Amino acid sequence: MLKTGLLGAGRIAGVHATAISANPDSELAAISDYFPENAKKLAAQYGTRARTTEEILADRSIDAVLIATSTDTHCELIEAAIAAGKAVLCEKPVDLSLDRARECQRRVKETGKPVMIGFNRRFDPNFSKFKQSLDAGEIGKPELLSITSFDPAPPPIEYVKVSGGLFRDMMIHDFDMANFVMGEVPIAVTAVGSSIVDPEIGSLGDVDTAAVSLTYQDGRIAVIKNSRRAVYGYDQRVELLGSEGLLQAHNMLENTVVKSTAQGVTGAKPTYFFLERYMPAYAAEWNAFVDAVKTGNEVPVSIEDGVAALAMAEAANLSAKTGKTVKLDEV
Amino acid sequence: MLKTGLLGAGRIAGVHATAISANPDSELAAISDYFPENAKKLAAQYGTRARTTEEILADRSIDAVLIATSTDTHCELIEAAIAAGKAVLCEKPVDLSLDRARECQRRVKETGKPVMIGFNRRFDPNFSKFKQSLDAGEIGKPELLSITSFDPAPPPIEYVKVSGGLFRDMMIHDFDMANFVMGEVPIAVTAVGSSIVDPEIGSLGDVDTAAVSLTYQDGRIAVIKNSRRAVYGYDQRVELLGSEGLLQAHNMLENTVVKSTAQGVTGAKPTYFFLERYMPAYAAEWNAFVDAVKTGNEVPVSIEDGVAALAMAEAANLSAKTGKTVKLDEV
Amino acid sequence: MLKTGLLGAGRIAGVHATAISANPDSELAAISDYFPENAKKLAAQYGTRARTTEEILADRSIDAVLIATSTDTHCELIEAAIAAGKAVLCEKPVDLSLDRARECQRRVKETGKPVMIGFNRRFDPNFSKFKQSLDAGEIGKPELLSITSFDPAPPPIEYVKVSGGLFRDMMIHDFDMANFVMGEVPIAVTAVGSSIVDPEIGSLGDVDTAAVSLTYQDGRIAVIKNSRRAVYGYDQRVELLGSEGLLQAHNMLENTVVKSTAQGVTGAKPTYFFLERYMPAYAAEWNAFVDAVKTGNEVPVSIEDGVAALAMAEAANLSAKTGKTVKLDEV
Amino acid sequence: MLKTGLLGAGRIAGVHATAISANPDSELAAISDYFPENAKKLAAQYGTRARTTEEILADRSIDAVLIATSTDTHCELIEAAIAAGKAVLCEKPVDLSLDRARECQRRVKETGKPVMIGFNRRFDPNFSKFKQSLDAGEIGKPELLSITSFDPAPPPIEYVKVSGGLFRDMMIHDFDMANFVMGEVPIAVTAVGSSIVDPEIGSLGDVDTAAVSLTYQDGRIAVIKNSRRAVYGYDQRVELLGSEGLLQAHNMLENTVVKSTAQGVTGAKPTYFFLERYMPAYAAEWNAFVDAVKTGNEVPVSIEDGVAALAMAEAANLSAKTGKTVKLDEV
Repeated sequence: MLKTGLLGAGRIAGVHATAISANPDSELAAISDYFPENAKKLAAQYGTRARTTEEILADRSIDAVLIATSTDTHCELIEAAIAAGKAVLCEKPVDLSLDRARECQRRVKETGKPVMIGFNRRFDPNFSKFKQSLDAGEIGKPELLSITSFDPAPPPIEYVKVSGGLFRDMMIHDFDMANFVMGEVPIAVTAVGSSIVDPEIGSLGDVDTAAVSLTYQDGRIAVIKNSRRAVYGYDQRVELLGSEGLLQAHNMLENTVVKSTAQGVTGAKPTYFFLERYMPAYAAEWNAFVDAVKTGNEVPVSIEDGVAALAMAEAANLSAKTGKTVKLDEV
Repeated sequence: MLKTGLLGAGRIAGVHATAISANPDSELAAISDYFPENAKKLAAQYGTRARTTEEILADRSIDAVLIATSTDTHCELIEAAIAAGKAVLCEKPVDLSLDRARECQRRVKETGKPVMIGFNRRFDPNFSKFKQSLDAGEIGKPELLSITSFDPAPPPIEYVKVSGGLFRDMMIHDFDMANFVMGEVPIAVTAVGSSIVDPEIGSLGDVDTAAVSLTYQDGRIAVIKNSRRAVYGYDQRVELLGSEGLLQAHNMLENTVVKSTAQGVTGAKPTYFFLERYMPAYAAEWNAFVDAVKTGNEVPVSIEDGVAALAMAEAANLSAKTGKTVKLDEV
Repeated sequence: MLKTGLLGAGRIAGVHATAISANPDSELAAISDYFPENAKKLAAQYGTRARTTEEILADRSIDAVLIATSTDTHCELIEAAIAAGKAVLCEKPVDLSLDRARECQRRVKETGKPVMIGFNRRFDPNFSKFKQSLDAGEIGKPELLSITSFDPAPPPIEYVKVSGGLFRDMMIHDFDMANFVMGEVPIAVTAVGSSIVDPEIGSLGDVDTAAVSLTYQDGRIAVIKNSRRAVYGYDQRVELLGSEGLLQAHNMLENTVVKSTAQGVTGAKPTYFFLERYMPAYAAEWNAFVDAVKTGNEVPVSIEDGVAALAMAEAANLSAKTGKTVKLDEV
Repeated sequence: MLKTGLLGAGRIAGVHATAISANPDSELAAISDYFPENAKKLAAQYGTRARTTEEILADRSIDAVLIATSTDTHCELIEAAIAAGKAVLCEKPVDLSLDRARECQRRVKETGKPVMIGFNRRFDPNFSKFKQSLDAGEIGKPELLSITSFDPAPPPIEYVKVSGGLFRDMMIHDFDMANFVMGEVPIAVTAVGSSIVDPEIGSLGDVDTAAVSLTYQDGRIAVIKNSRRAVYGYDQRVELLGSEGLLQAHNMLENTVVKSTAQGVTGAKPTYFFLERYMPAYAAEWNAFVDAVKTGNEVPVSIEDGVAALAMAEAANLSAKTGKTVKLDEV
């Protein structure tokens, strides 16, 4: 039984609390938050205790922590947790600073404790099946990957200000998806971006619409498209052209009802946003973490993966600004 | 908090146990089964007590029972439960005998206790959405309904023997779906059936493949197709032609991955069987029951609905045997 | 070069004129019509001559006639044409009277001349592919066939009066489709029908909405659904459950454009009506006729096929009126 | 009646011959080819005369020429044809040299004769409908365009050698599609490409897989993906994210048959290649040309459009080589 402390009590922490409770091999032992009231509320809901982060880290009976706090605290908490001998599952990104993230990565490596980064999409049943088909050789050798990732609506402008920008905050998921599918990191990143959805985002120096090309050692290419606004819902599609076929993971739809009238044939929209779409992925992610810790196997998404995605975001930022392809070993 | 006793500890009882536990307004207070060991096992899994049915019915602190026992005990348990003052959710069918079911219906009417019959499909999110669209007038006046309902594989022959036959055991769900969609019972039933999937089913006097037409007072028509075997999975589709359009509820698929190769374009199969497809429907069904009991509103699927579907099955049996249309008021 | 006379110059004759002209092995030698002006107009359009039917039949240089006149003239013209030594392709139905059609069938048999009936749907590329897959054993042994066939709008009431009724005029295509797919005629027909689209159709003793079940010697079942009105377009679908899978032929759509907005995901409607949907089928039908005549092979749709479909329509009429299953050998 | 000379008698010329013959307002008056035998053969098939190009241009009764010769002759023939007073429809590309194409464009402008470039895809019914929906404001303001364009198999290596490379030979269609959809040319082109399908293509200095981003004055972005090989057929999709929705034009499929078995649900592949997919587009293209010449309206695809697409190809070549974004006014 993996006794787990949940650090953070915000919206995504609630999703993790459900997953931790549902897994028969883990137990939600305590919850902390910057605002103790939030921790209390969530703890009551899940029949557990609200404690401080310090208490949780100091409690030797707690085996693992799930870090779901604000990004700027991730590295510090990872380091404190592994120092306290805990296994760690930390929400993405590792940090907004690549240097800081690399420093954290070094420390993780030193301790050898299991630290997993929460790239939940790898655990979505559709993308899992996609990867299985690819690995089984069903479309031959991969050649050209395409990731479409649109949010239903831009976040509040206050969030945009502290987000680290579209490449680090939003496309980082897609960088990791590319790494997951392609099985390695690219050698170069070429990015274009603009602020066309909301000029206020542009006035902060950020973009809301972007296209990035990744190139790989052997000539493979990946294209990622992001937009902060798709009014029809969360658009999350991946497709890969291989030497023997094309593999696509389409959107999940709200329902299967289709209406045909004189105006056309109308079906349901994609599921609205990440909570609707990725709820099963969050559960599967937690289960994979528990399994890894239990068996002593490597966690399926390492801090190296987290740092790699962040480096790609950094390269994309640089490329979008300079109009030049940026090699990944330059950042 | 609706304290609930679960009568029966088989496979479907497990599904209900999950739903009862998950609803914040209900509590799984006890489980009984013909085989006490089964009740103990399930009770342990859900952190509750195994008791006898008699104890459960006698316990005044228990507000409701969910009857998930074998069909031949349904009427007796409904009657005992309402006599003990409990609200009841009973799995379909009410009984295999129409007379017995009608007798039970009379008793339920006398006590006025809430008794709901478990036609879970009404609560499937897709069929719910379908009904909402229809009721909102999106395809005008309904004219021609079509229900496709195929199981992935025939049940064991031992089950077939005691099932009451395809019309009472399997198509009864579709009769209720027709009543749900059309908002009334038909006036006549015309059925053809044959044993083509498995001759052993035929040797028992039962059919494994059938087509039934229902006709309504105002000329509307419904067609139901059943097969005991669709090797690609559970095929559960409903479509309705109306004066202003067509409404379809398609199958749920196992995933959204599509592979295009020189051999064609291949996607996932429908979800395998009722547990995969209707898990959310069982939860929504329970929630609707709890809401009705809590608010004092009528239960959304009454024992009248259960009897009506059974009468249609009876009429279908008669029609298939005689080669004549059978009026519903003849059975 | 098959020199062909086209009897009839109405709308469908124009479709045939195009097919005759486009086939490099046939030549549109003359056109006749009850209204000579219509023949002249069509002849001018296709660069051929308007003549009388008598002249065409008497002209020994003409090898074949395509009969696209009104139904009541079909048998007479078939008989005159084979007496004149011509090969014949005649539009469906053979006649509205089953007796008259059978008389014609006998005469055709006596002369041994090739007479093909215009069940164009057999030549639709989608249904052809469907049949090929079935014949290749891709879904195992057929068990349960379902044909959906809805017109976009009811015909003018004047047409309904002389049409012979829905079963003989409209569903006859679907009876032939069932025979085509199943490879034999059924043993019994069970029909229900009503007038719900347009009460005026009902006041003529006809139906506009119907469901028919066909049963076969070995237990197979087919279901046909017809409606005179589907406001979203011509709905022409066939699906067949077999022991190893399901085969479906879906509708052709007007285009492949899909629009996703906050209101849903909307695609194109089915192609509007038979001219849009079956234009390639008419050409393929003609080509098959020319091939058969050229090679001396049997025509792919015989007058027996035409009579069989008519007998099924007769049985359906009787069944709908009596509420009883009608054996095909009773009509 | 537009009397038309067809210059070239290769495969695509055959397609054009059909379109010219089918249009009631145009007449295929003569055909020429570098190999006179080819011209004779095609002329015989369409019931017209084989002549030399010089004779065709000198014949004052000929109103228009359709240039379907090898690319290196396009400019010369355009210039000769307009000098001879003919209207011109010329296959893409205008030339492989941007300078030469611009010179030709200048001459066309001087004479003011109608010269249309054969970007046939603009006339595909699906892309036409796509554009209509966009222009009708159905998805609001366009923001992010994505064009997927894969050939089923690489061309012979001998063709690759003289093709001008993927950007000028293949992606030029997609550059024009972007201009068609976006309604203006981009300001900058960013390209990555590699030779991963066939190393021999790479050894010629060409690429077989490429991704290009286009950026527009107002911040809009377009992404084009090309591959020389998609084993499942010709993959031709366009999608556009707008402020109020997403518009997609999907592939045409070979048929509508879908098979569900224990192995999955399999449908037809996309139509095989451009002849299958774009046959209706070639006809519509010719009809649009005839209409423009007849009415004196501007041709719907001008030589400016042809030069613009070529300039984008040039920029893409430069960008792929240098790893830098290339402004369109730099080429």
